[in-house]
Amino acid sequence: MKHFLAAIAMITTAAQAQEVTTFDLDNGMEVVVIEDHRAPVVVHMVWYKVGSADEPVGASGVAHFFEHLMFKQTDVLAAGEFSATVAANGGSDNAFTSYDYTAYFQRIAADRLDLMMQMESNRMTNLAVTADNIETERNVVLEERNQRTENNPGALAREQFNAALFQNHRYGVPVIGWKHEMEQLELEDAIAFYDLYYAPNNAILVVAGDVEPDAVRALAETYYGVIPAEPNLPERIRPQEPPQRAERRITYTDPRVSQPYLTRSYLAPERNSGAQEEAAALVYLAELLGGSPFTSDLGTALQFDSQIALYTSASYDGNTLDSGTFQVAVAPAADVTLSEAEAAMDQVISDFMANDIDPARIESIRTQLRASEIYALDDMQGLARRYGAALSQSLTVADIQAWPAILQSVTETDIKAAAAKVFNRDQAVTGWVVATPEDAR
Amino acid sequence: MKHFLAAIAMITTAAQAQEVTTFDLDNGMEVVVIEDHRAPVVVHMVWYKVGSADEPVGASGVAHFFEHLMFKQTDVLAAGEFSATVAANGGSDNAFTSYDYTAYFQRIAADRLDLMMQMESNRMTNLAVTADNIETERNVVLEERNQRTENNPGALAREQFNAALFQNHRYGVPVIGWKHEMEQLELEDAIAFYDLYYAPNNAILVVAGDVEPDAVRALAETYYGVIPAEPNLPERIRPQEPPQRAERRITYTDPRVSQPYLTRSYLAPERNSGAQEEAAALVYLAELLGGSPFTSDLGTALQFDSQIALYTSASYDGNTLDSGTFQVAVAPAADVTLSEAEAAMDQVISDFMANDIDPARIESIRTQLRASEIYALDDMQGLARRYGAALSQSLTVADIQAWPAILQSVTETDIKAAAAKVFNRDQAVTGWVVATPEDAR
Repeated sequence: MKHFLAAIAMITTAAQAQEVTTFDLDNGMEVVVIEDHRAPVVVHMVWYKVGSADEPVGASGVAHFFEHLMFKQTDVLAAGEFSATVAANGGSDNAFTSYDYTAYFQRIAADRLDLMMQMESNRMTNLAVTADNIETERNVVLEERNQRTENNPGALAREQFNAALFQNHRYGVPVIGWKHEMEQLELEDAIAFYDLYYAPNNAILVVAGDVEPDAVRALAETYYGVIPAEPNLPERIRPQEPPQRAERRITYTDPRVSQPYLTRSYLAPERNSGAQEEAAALVYLAELLGGSPFTSDLGTALQFDSQIALYTSASYDGNTLDSGTFQVAVAPAADVTLSEAEAAMDQVISDFMANDIDPARIESIRTQLRASEIYALDDMQGLARRYGAALSQSLTVADIQAWPAILQSVTETDIKAAAAKVFNRDQAVTGWVVATPEDAR
Repeated sequence: MKHFLAAIAMITTAAQAQEVTTFDLDNGMEVVVIEDHRAPVVVHMVWYKVGSADEPVGASGVAHFFEHLMFKQTDVLAAGEFSATVAANGGSDNAFTSYDYTAYFQRIAADRLDLMMQMESNRMTNLAVTADNIETERNVVLEERNQRTENNPGALAREQFNAALFQNHRYGVPVIGWKHEMEQLELEDAIAFYDLYYAPNNAILVVAGDVEPDAVRALAETYYGVIPAEPNLPERIRPQEPPQRAERRITYTDPRVSQPYLTRSYLAPERNSGAQEEAAALVYLAELLGGSPFTSDLGTALQFDSQIALYTSASYDGNTLDSGTFQVAVAPAADVTLSEAEAAMDQVISDFMANDIDPARIESIRTQLRASEIYALDDMQGLARRYGAALSQSLTVADIQAWPAILQSVTETDIKAAAAKVFNRDQAVTGWVVATPEDAR
């Protein structure tokens, strides 16, 4: 039971341009209302705090599989009727599954919010999936895996690298699932997953657009408030990584690879509630090392000065419930071996650690981030998504609203300290992706 | 419920020197009696078909932890009284935990079998573990991990290599547990594990020695037969590996390493019920490649001819419920790099695959195996252990008894075919173990 934010107490903040109002229903469902009255449109989202990393062992892919099943029949809706109704009312809908959440969206005229809630609350609890649905939709998701993964050497390589990066955590298992386990998914797996996790006390309702919080609350109480909380919802504790003690190196060989490249993925701290500073510093680190080929360390050193590389990048993903990742990648120029490219990449990293950072570059990133945080406020759907994702990854509304200021306060010392922590080869996978064994040199 | 072998129908085989009698109790407990009347001694074992690979995710180490707790108090025995009673009666006792089973043994005068069953059946169901026991014994197993693993660079390296070898299966998690998860093991974890898995329908009783099957049956019915079957015992299905698509390479660096070495572990077929032929061929392969330094391919080529290596080995472990492993290892001589040693090792493997096998060598291994299978019959405790382990890894008595003949029937073609399947670098981890980064070359 959550008592810290009673349904009766509304918290309204104006830290950002939008009014953001949050409250809980009595059954534990969290509600976020983001007012944006510029256009008579609404985005309605339900986020379930369950993703592929919460799946039962041996049933990988069931979270994403279930996302598909949610568009099948309920006690009152025929299969496909949900999306057809959204479209008939001039809206669009979508859904997606990640490691940490499964989310369902509709964007539609504001006066259709009632209908959206009616349908979405109906499938939260009255889905009527049959063995036939399972058979059909299992083939659909297997085909999706074929297209996205089996036919994509980069995706296959990523799967292998991820499986090696995580020694214990389910982030090492692909969101779409291992094929051999997807083939075994049965009606019982799907129903068990639905019964346990699709419940108001495991869900976040985000409504953004031309709405008033009081009206949203009245509707939410009517449609979602009547659904009982799931009493057996488990505490969300996932297995954590043991100390990682040695770099893993993998060469993935696939004749379909057109351009060899290498990546290195490091475990990295993620954004945590009340402790987002390291994550903010890593946002800068990724920009400094690989943000733009014209200004970043990897880009200027490898793509321009030495012309060793055709492509370089650095990226940070700390928007995760558990451990985040920091990744660098280099595609070598013709006649440059992967060994040479990797050595050059590591030299850039060592140089970065050894030298001071030009304050003007930090200032420039700070300005870019300020601008992008301001632009983000204009993107109603993006903002709604940001709230839904962050709340389902155990951040709070206060954390989300504090993030732009935390980003602005990052210093060189913070960046260097975060980099020193992340650049630990013992917690990393270095992957080479090549077409032939001869390219792996 | 198992009806295929009713308690009333005894099967007696004389395929081997000993009489082996098997039957089931009505509650599903399997019983194996191995008669050996040479000395008035008995080995009494209870094998539970649960090991570390059956543990709940996030609770690694609980199977082994529970093995320790089984020596604490029950409703009638004080903590430590079990072992003290065995010793006071001139016997010895032990227990151990593996990926696939947890087993409890006593070796004692044959007329004390009644007492052993009385005590062992008592702790199958009446263990009375307290929070205090947990606190104390958790420190004991953590200290065990310190001694066996944390203070042993080879063991730490093996953990890292294993975690990379298995992408999905729990064989990638150490039997003793990850330290950070062991620290979190609580009374509820232990009790949940005990309640579910410590039940007669999940156990195998093996009694070997100077006993008569009828007498064992009468005692087993008295002590074990009265314990109800666990109705919620789950089917034993573990997550299997996805297709592995790229070799993993790991250099484990630890200043405590006194001699650098390298290992390569491949996934390999295991012994399966009714299909043990590939496993038998791999027993030969391990002998041919690394059996003795004086005759094996790795030994003669690397330790004698080129003197590249101080030590070589090849080993096969197919006594597993799920995937087995095949491993080769080389410790290079002074002034030989690990790269050179690995290249030489791979050359030995290629040469092996390219050339015929001398029939005399196969014949010599065949003879050794025949001899060791005959000697095995003399080792009452080893034989009892063989039955308990195999039955808890889903082999049958018929499989165990067929094994010596299957070993004898292996041909060169079988060995080559099994080798061609196993020597797939995409399903392998190559690990280097060194003291300093400079040694990794």
